[in-house]
Amino acid sequence: VDRKRIGIIGAGVAGLHLGLHLRQHGVDAVILTDTRPEDYRGARLQNTVAHHHGTLALERALGIDHWPVEQCGYFAHYHYFGGEFPLAFRGHPTAAGRSVDYRIYLPQLMADFAERGGVIEYGAIAEHDVPALVQRFDLIVVCTGRTPLGRLFARDARHSPLEKPQRSLQAGLFTGIRGQEPRGVMLSIAPGHGELVELPILSFGGPVTGLLLENLPGGDFEELQHLRYEDDPRRFRETFLAKLATHHPLIHERIDAQSFDLCSPRDQLQGAITAVVREGHRPLGDEKWAIALGDAHVTVDPALGQGANAAAYAAAILGEEIVRQDIFDERFCEEVDARRMDRILCAARWTQRMLEPPSAELRQLIAVMSQNQALLDAFSDGFSRPDLQWRRLGTPARILRWIAEAQAAA
Amino acid sequence: VDRKRIGIIGAGVAGLHLGLHLRQHGVDAVILTDTRPEDYRGARLQNTVAHHHGTLALERALGIDHWPVEQCGYFAHYHYFGGEFPLAFRGHPTAAGRSVDYRIYLPQLMADFAERGGVIEYGAIAEHDVPALVQRFDLIVVCTGRTPLGRLFARDARHSPLEKPQRSLQAGLFTGIRGQEPRGVMLSIAPGHGELVELPILSFGGPVTGLLLENLPGGDFEELQHLRYEDDPRRFRETFLAKLATHHPLIHERIDAQSFDLCSPRDQLQGAITAVVREGHRPLGDEKWAIALGDAHVTVDPALGQGANAAAYAAAILGEEIVRQDIFDERFCEEVDARRMDRILCAARWTQRMLEPPSAELRQLIAVMSQNQALLDAFSDGFSRPDLQWRRLGTPARILRWIAEAQAAA
Repeated sequence: VDRKRIGIIGAGVAGLHLGLHLRQHGVDAVILTDTRPEDYRGARLQNTVAHHHGTLALERALGIDHWPVEQCGYFAHYHYFGGEFPLAFRGHPTAAGRSVDYRIYLPQLMADFAERGGVIEYGAIAEHDVPALVQRFDLIVVCTGRTPLGRLFARDARHSPLEKPQRSLQAGLFTGIRGQEPRGVMLSIAPGHGELVELPILSFGGPVTGLLLENLPGGDFEELQHLRYEDDPRRFRETFLAKLATHHPLIHERIDAQSFDLCSPRDQLQGAITAVVREGHRPLGDEKWAIALGDAHVTVDPALGQGANAAAYAAAILGEEIVRQDIFDERFCEEVDARRMDRILCAARWTQRMLEPPSAELRQLIAVMSQNQALLDAFSDGFSRPDLQWRRLGTPARILRWIAEAQAAA
Repeated sequence: VDRKRIGIIGAGVAGLHLGLHLRQHGVDAVILTDTRPEDYRGARLQNTVAHHHGTLALERALGIDHWPVEQCGYFAHYHYFGGEFPLAFRGHPTAAGRSVDYRIYLPQLMADFAERGGVIEYGAIAEHDVPALVQRFDLIVVCTGRTPLGRLFARDARHSPLEKPQRSLQAGLFTGIRGQEPRGVMLSIAPGHGELVELPILSFGGPVTGLLLENLPGGDFEELQHLRYEDDPRRFRETFLAKLATHHPLIHERIDAQSFDLCSPRDQLQGAITAVVREGHRPLGDEKWAIALGDAHVTVDPALGQGANAAAYAAAILGEEIVRQDIFDERFCEEVDARRMDRILCAARWTQRMLEPPSAELRQLIAVMSQNQALLDAFSDGFSRPDLQWRRLGTPARILRWIAEAQAAA
């Protein structure tokens, strides 16, 4: 093989990390997308994504660490467990995380990729374009479900136990919320109603606050989902504030009611995600293979911020294997899967588990964590290593062992 | 967990290697089997198994390296490819292999195990014994398909493409065959009729020659399968010799017709193996799990000598994980599978492929090997690393790449 020809469908975090990894090692890469960098400026909020420190390390290695954590990173994980006897505490991961609005992040990475010799081709992909793509590339990496190629990958029933979303999602970027010191993300849990994730996000206007409501069906936040901000901004704000006061007091107490508002009507998003694991690769005929990456491969609820981090992790592994190998057949895909699957599956399992009612053992862990800073810090650090987290938390017996180990060490 | 209680069903190579590994690390292990050491002395031939050098390294680590390779090991892989233009050549693995009659090998390992504090319990296991076993052990390792526990593990259709055996097998231990210098195993291929594996085996009477016929249905060796040695030893010998003369001349030429004979009527075996990969673990209720090891997990045709070596490899990995971990749940089994499956699957795939008619590229490789000692030696060494072998031989493109690499290096 003289020259590797890699086609990447989709310019999200998975496709761009992969493309940048390949360019760093002198491998040709073409990204195909229907979204131009300039389209992001006026676009709606894409998501509220935090990059854990493992992903930041990958970004440093790729030379795309453009946003100093001193200015916009976060250093703490705040936890609030509501209910009859509320618990609140703060954990410290071993390194800083960061959240940059993807309407800033993605076009910056596209510019980096193009500057480093990557080719981006713009346009939609129709069914009749696929044979020419198969002809053109040695390997097609599919990073979005939105093209005919994205629909290739069948649901893997062994790892996809859910038939419907566990939460309804409502996200927005807000002004008027005072941050905490040290800067951190907060996971505030309202039993019976859902979770609220608060993140310091760097957006167009500078640092703002992202709020991601993870609403349980039938809970107290359902009402909010039926209010359109555009119809009555004041009513939306007041309803939101009242519900925060009831269910998420440690966020509510930092809100200035006068200045509390969406940054702009575009800075909001509603939706719901059914967690799914898809098969990782598919033959395209002519001895060519398509490999799924990121959301096209595994989709998780955003509650624990695992999706983008798993995508970046998998992109790094796929990039390493493309650089190292030169035959991109079924065995290649299998070797990629063998390296990437465990951490991704654990991210999916842990996310699903944390959205179920907690077991007695998990409640016990939470209580112990509130009194054991080392345990709490390890738990916070585990957001970057869902495979380790799942080894500790996957069953009641494992939780009890982790508690016992932590108490023996203390 | 204060003390790990590991139950091992079956005292073949898998169960004994595992038991010895556990005892070496101070872990309690009980082996349950229906065969006593003294039963082997008068038993029929069990198999004709060669331990490749990777397995010998494991045996040294376990302290069960009782048979010096200088006396009974082998150092070369002889190949004969019959047909219109026969090819014959000799490869050298990086270290010696060894074949010891399992009627000597297994009782020796049982004695080692007992001497090192292992417990062996003798008797058949019936369906109604299972609940008590589940109660008694933290993990049950099933190394034989012959008990009710062995039938637990379902066929894994993804990795079990075959519905029936690829060969009929006929094995025996013989006198009257002069060995080669250096001592070696020989794989002699008679296109359209099957293969003959010749091995120097240490048996009760000292070094003898094992012959394993891998007969293709409809081939010239079918006749031999219908001759019972006991009915007419002379006719059996003469028919055998005539067929060896026609199809396996490089073995036939070393046979002394006068002394050529089965070592004893017990030293023969007929059968056929349908290659199958079974699921690796199964819940037993009460949060207990059974894990399959060795033949109970993956069964392959013996043509390439992969079964026992895969079993020893998997036993070492399972032993390491049992020592390292202390919760033996589904996740434990999954982590064991993640470590062991690739090499085992590649052993199964490579064996199956080598019993299919060779592709043009494989025939080309064989021709190149006959002229390229480094390539041939690497191929011979690959018997100990089926995962590497499959990376080189899995597809025509991979074979061509390996040939090109070897020719560039030469």
